[in-house]
Amino acid sequence: MESVVVAGVGMTDFGRFPGRTPASMVQEAARAALADAGVAPKEVEGAFCGTVFGGPGAGQRALKDLGLVGLPIVNVENACASSSTAVFEGVAWVRAGLAEVVLCVGVESMSGIAGALGPDEADLFGSMGVVWPAVYGLKARRHMTEYGTTPEQLALVAVKNRRHAAQNPKAQFQKLVTVEEVLASRPVCDPLTLLQCCPPSDGASAIVLMSEAQARRLGANGRPTVRIAGSAMRSGVFADQAQMGESITALTARQAYERAGVGPADVDTCEMHDAFTVGEILHYEALGFCKPGEGGRYVETGKSAIGGGGVAVNPGGGLLSRGHPLGATGGAQLAELTWQLRGEAGGRQVEGARVALAHTMGGTVYELESNVCAVHVLTV
Amino acid sequence: MESVVVAGVGMTDFGRFPGRTPASMVQEAARAALADAGVAPKEVEGAFCGTVFGGPGAGQRALKDLGLVGLPIVNVENACASSSTAVFEGVAWVRAGLAEVVLCVGVESMSGIAGALGPDEADLFGSMGVVWPAVYGLKARRHMTEYGTTPEQLALVAVKNRRHAAQNPKAQFQKLVTVEEVLASRPVCDPLTLLQCCPPSDGASAIVLMSEAQARRLGANGRPTVRIAGSAMRSGVFADQAQMGESITALTARQAYERAGVGPADVDTCEMHDAFTVGEILHYEALGFCKPGEGGRYVETGKSAIGGGGVAVNPGGGLLSRGHPLGATGGAQLAELTWQLRGEAGGRQVEGARVALAHTMGGTVYELESNVCAVHVLTV
Repeated sequence: MESVVVAGVGMTDFGRFPGRTPASMVQEAARAALADAGVAPKEVEGAFCGTVFGGPGAGQRALKDLGLVGLPIVNVENACASSSTAVFEGVAWVRAGLAEVVLCVGVESMSGIAGALGPDEADLFGSMGVVWPAVYGLKARRHMTEYGTTPEQLALVAVKNRRHAAQNPKAQFQKLVTVEEVLASRPVCDPLTLLQCCPPSDGASAIVLMSEAQARRLGANGRPTVRIAGSAMRSGVFADQAQMGESITALTARQAYERAGVGPADVDTCEMHDAFTVGEILHYEALGFCKPGEGGRYVETGKSAIGGGGVAVNPGGGLLSRGHPLGATGGAQLAELTWQLRGEAGGRQVEGARVALAHTMGGTVYELESNVCAVHVLTV
Repeated sequence: MESVVVAGVGMTDFGRFPGRTPASMVQEAARAALADAGVAPKEVEGAFCGTVFGGPGAGQRALKDLGLVGLPIVNVENACASSSTAVFEGVAWVRAGLAEVVLCVGVESMSGIAGALGPDEADLFGSMGVVWPAVYGLKARRHMTEYGTTPEQLALVAVKNRRHAAQNPKAQFQKLVTVEEVLASRPVCDPLTLLQCCPPSDGASAIVLMSEAQARRLGANGRPTVRIAGSAMRSGVFADQAQMGESITALTARQAYERAGVGPADVDTCEMHDAFTVGEILHYEALGFCKPGEGGRYVETGKSAIGGGGVAVNPGGGLLSRGHPLGATGGAQLAELTWQLRGEAGGRQVEGARVALAHTMGGTVYELESNVCAVHVLTV
C-alpha cells in the first residue's frame, strides 16, 4: 500500500490554559503545521478534527478562521486516540485518492471541562471507584506479583520521561524529578503515586499529510521525508486493557508492523501511551521491545532512555510530562516522532532514528468496554 | 474511481422512544443491515458511528454486544450530516483498501437530551433568537419576496412528505395532513408553522458497504446491486445557508454529480434535507431539479411527488415526516434510496428508479458558522 508523507507538524505548548478556547489552540497548531509543510490553507483538500469534549462542529469552528472553508471537514472521536484516529482517516483519504493534502488536528481543553467528568450514573464499576487510575493500579500490582516488578522500576518511567521533557520546551512539566520524589508524591491508587499519573492538560496538535505525488511536486526543502509506512487501529473491550498477555496493543502493533514491513527490532524511537507509569512498562512488552515480564528491567537498565541502547521511548516526555490533552495527544506523538526522524529534536534527539512508532490507547471504563488502540509506524 | 456497493441497509422505527438507549437502537439497525447484506458480524472489517450527542465511545459501546470487537471503529460527528459523513468515511476505507466490508451506523436520542439544547452563552445571535427555525423562516420570507413563493406552496411540501410517509411503516408521522391543517398549525417562525418543522426524534440507521470484489464473492441474491457512484462533502460558513444562489448544496452536488458521471436530469428520486419546508424548495433549485426561483411551483405542480413526473423527493417522508434523529438521518436516507433502487419500497415505490441522490445538511448557527453538506449519488 502506498505510503503517505507527513509533510508538516505543529503543536501548541501543552499545559493549563483555562483562558484559551479549543479553536484558538487548533488555529495555532494548524498554522504551525501548514507553515512547516509549506502549504497554504487553500491547498488543504480535507481536514479531520480529533477531540473528545470539543463539542459539535469543533473542527469547522476552529478552521474557518484560517480560511479552511469549502473542503470536507470531519470531527472524529475515539477517546484518547482521537487525533491518532484523525490521522488514520487522513491516511485513508490520501490512499483513496479523495485528497492530496489533508490536515489532521487534535484538541482538548481539560480546563474547559473541569469538574464535568466523573463516572456515569449507570456505571456500577465507576461508582465503586474502578476508574482509570484504579485499573492501572491493579495492573501494576498484578505485574509486581507475577514478575517481581518493583515500585522503583515504576517510578523510573516517570523520572526518565521527565528527563526527556526537560529538553522539550512544549512540555507541561520540564523540571527533573527523582525516584524518591516520585515515590513520595501523594498516593493516587496504590502503588501509583501522583507523579506516576498523567496530568489534566490543554493543548492542540496538527499534522499535514500528503500524497507521494504532491510531496514530490512540493519538494522536501532539503529535509528528510517522513512517511507513515503502516497504520493499524482496533477497538476492543475492557478485558483487552486488563489482560497482561495478548493485549489490544500487541494485536494492533502486529498489524501495523506487517503493513509497514518492519518489526520491533527495527524501531529506534517510540511515543507510547504512558497515562500511568505501569502502562509504559506493559507496552514495552506488548510492542515487542522486550519479553513479557521484563518491562520493569527494560526501564531500570536504561534501555528506554534516549541513548540507552534500546528503543528510546517517549523522547518528548510522554503523557506523563508533555501532558495529555486527550484529543491532541496522538498528533503530538506524531509531531515529536517527525522531529526525531528529521533530526530536529534538539537536546532530546535520538541519534540516527530511522523508524519510529506511535502508540495511543483510548477508552472508557463504562460498563467495562470501549477500548481503542491506534499504532502508526513512521520511517525516513 | 471504483464504486462501492451498498450491500445492506436497516433502520429502527423513528419516533419518540425515551426509554431506549442509543446502543439498543444501533444494535437493532445494525442487525437489520447485516441480515439484509447476508453478512455476519465477524466479517465486518471496519465501522463508523455517526452521532452528535451519543457521547464518547458511542460506536464501541453499541457494537461490542453484536460481537464487533477487534476491528477499527470510529465515531464521527458532523451535525445532522453525521451518518452521511460516516458513509463517506466508509466509502473512503473501501476505496483505500483498508476494509472490504464496512458498517456505518447513525444514531440519536433526542429524547435523551431533552432540555439540554439551546444557544451557547457566547452565541449572541442565538441569544437574540436567531436559531434554525428563525433562519429558515427568514429564508422563506426572502424566497416569497424575491420569487413570489406562496405559503400554500410551502405547506404543500409538508403535505406531500406526509403522504409519502403514510406508506412508510418506519416513519414517525403517518397520518395525512391537508394544506389547511399545515397552515393552521401553531406558528413557529413566520411564515413557518409547526407542521413545517421537523420533529425531535429518536432512532438509528445502518448501512453495510462492500467492495465490488467482496460483493461479487457474496452474490446479489437475485437483487439489483445498489452502488454509491459518487459522493462529495463540503464544510462552509453560515452565509452558505443564508444565501439563495450558489449555495453549499449546489457546490457539493456539482462535485458529486461529476464523480458519479450523472446530472440532475438523470435523478429519479432524492432524499433531501427538509428540516423545514422551505429547505426542500431551496434544495430543488440548488440540486438542479428546477431553475432558481421555481421551487415553489415544482412542488405545486406535483413534480416532486412520487409519480409526479419530476424527481420524486423524500419518498420515505423526509425529515418532516419520517423524523429527524440527527445522527441517524443520513443513513435513513440511504436506506430509503436503496429500497427504492431495489424496487422494495412497497406502497411508496418510485417506479423504475435507477439513479438516486441523498442530500444532508448539518450545522450550528453558533457564531454564524459550521455548515456541512454531504451528497451521495446511488445507482443500480
